[in-house]
Amino acid sequence: MAFTDRSARARAAILAAAARRFAADGYEPTTVRAIAADAGVDPSMVIRYFTSKADLFYAVAAAELPRLEVPTGSDFAASYARSFVDVWENGGQALANLFRAAPTHPDAAQRLQDFLDRQLMPFFRAAFPDLPDIDQRAALVLSQTIGVIYCRYLLKLEPLASMSRETLQAAITGVIRRHLGEAA
Amino acid sequence: MAFTDRSARARAAILAAAARRFAADGYEPTTVRAIAADAGVDPSMVIRYFTSKADLFYAVAAAELPRLEVPTGSDFAASYARSFVDVWENGGQALANLFRAAPTHPDAAQRLQDFLDRQLMPFFRAAFPDLPDIDQRAALVLSQTIGVIYCRYLLKLEPLASMSRETLQAAITGVIRRHLGEAA
Repeated sequence: MAFTDRSARARAAILAAAARRFAADGYEPTTVRAIAADAGVDPSMVIRYFTSKADLFYAVAAAELPRLEVPTGSDFAASYARSFVDVWENGGQALANLFRAAPTHPDAAQRLQDFLDRQLMPFFRAAFPDLPDIDQRAALVLSQTIGVIYCRYLLKLEPLASMSRETLQAAITGVIRRHLGEAA
Repeated sequence: MAFTDRSARARAAILAAAARRFAADGYEPTTVRAIAADAGVDPSMVIRYFTSKADLFYAVAAAELPRLEVPTGSDFAASYARSFVDVWENGGQALANLFRAAPTHPDAAQRLQDFLDRQLMPFFRAAFPDLPDIDQRAALVLSQTIGVIYCRYLLKLEPLASMSRETLQAAITGVIRRHLGEAA
């Protein structure tokens, strides 16, 4: 019992330290050693719990998407758009750094690809088990939301950057429904 | 007559040299002097014809969008989507370099903003003079197309990168229509 608690606390401390480091310094300069020092644990414990720096990064990025759950109602598109805007209006710093670096760093682009493959595509497949072309549809949804990430949150291109949250969310909802079909 | 011909030839030579330099070296390292040397003209002629390196860049970028014309028929969305895919499947190198640099170089992001303000927004306003919120609608269209630029052409994220051109073009057409309303 005490061990499990301690273990859960150590994992949480590592995740929090990693989130701060990845957000502040970016992925490349961040070391497992620095994260371990911040979290007050031995570097070997970071590897025992998270396998590698890359896997730790995915865990941090996944933790930035707290509401990435298949909605129980039928309003998938509205729910996904709301979650997306929530996350990005309130930070999403580790992912933001990855998107910022990706166009000039093939390694970062590869980690984004891994993140899509490990986290987002399985999520869409689980939500729409009956759509045979769900991978393509999900990719189109992502092209819209990633476009908003770049235009509004990273490049801050106007007038998208200062568009009201409500207008943006409604537009994204409509596009998600367009890409996913009636089922969404 | 002879003077006009020579002037048109010089402008064309400067534009072609600038397009090659911006595509090969990117915006920042490219100098007016190098472009002038490539074009076989004096640097002062580049400034006389194009005012500044920035304005020359916009002229090159605009020349990369040869079919950016308001369609005469009613099929704006399909026509715009086709033009967009045409341009990006076949190059768009100067613009690609600008999008690549923009997330880490505020100057490049500002030049993208200028490009939207000078070229794309006036184009959308001219196409939809009766839509009072055309700026917001156009910004949403751009968020979808810029998302495709990053996902497919720059980061090459799968499965969008290898999606068939037809599927992509049809999806973009639908989203443009969604953002612009029935008029498109």
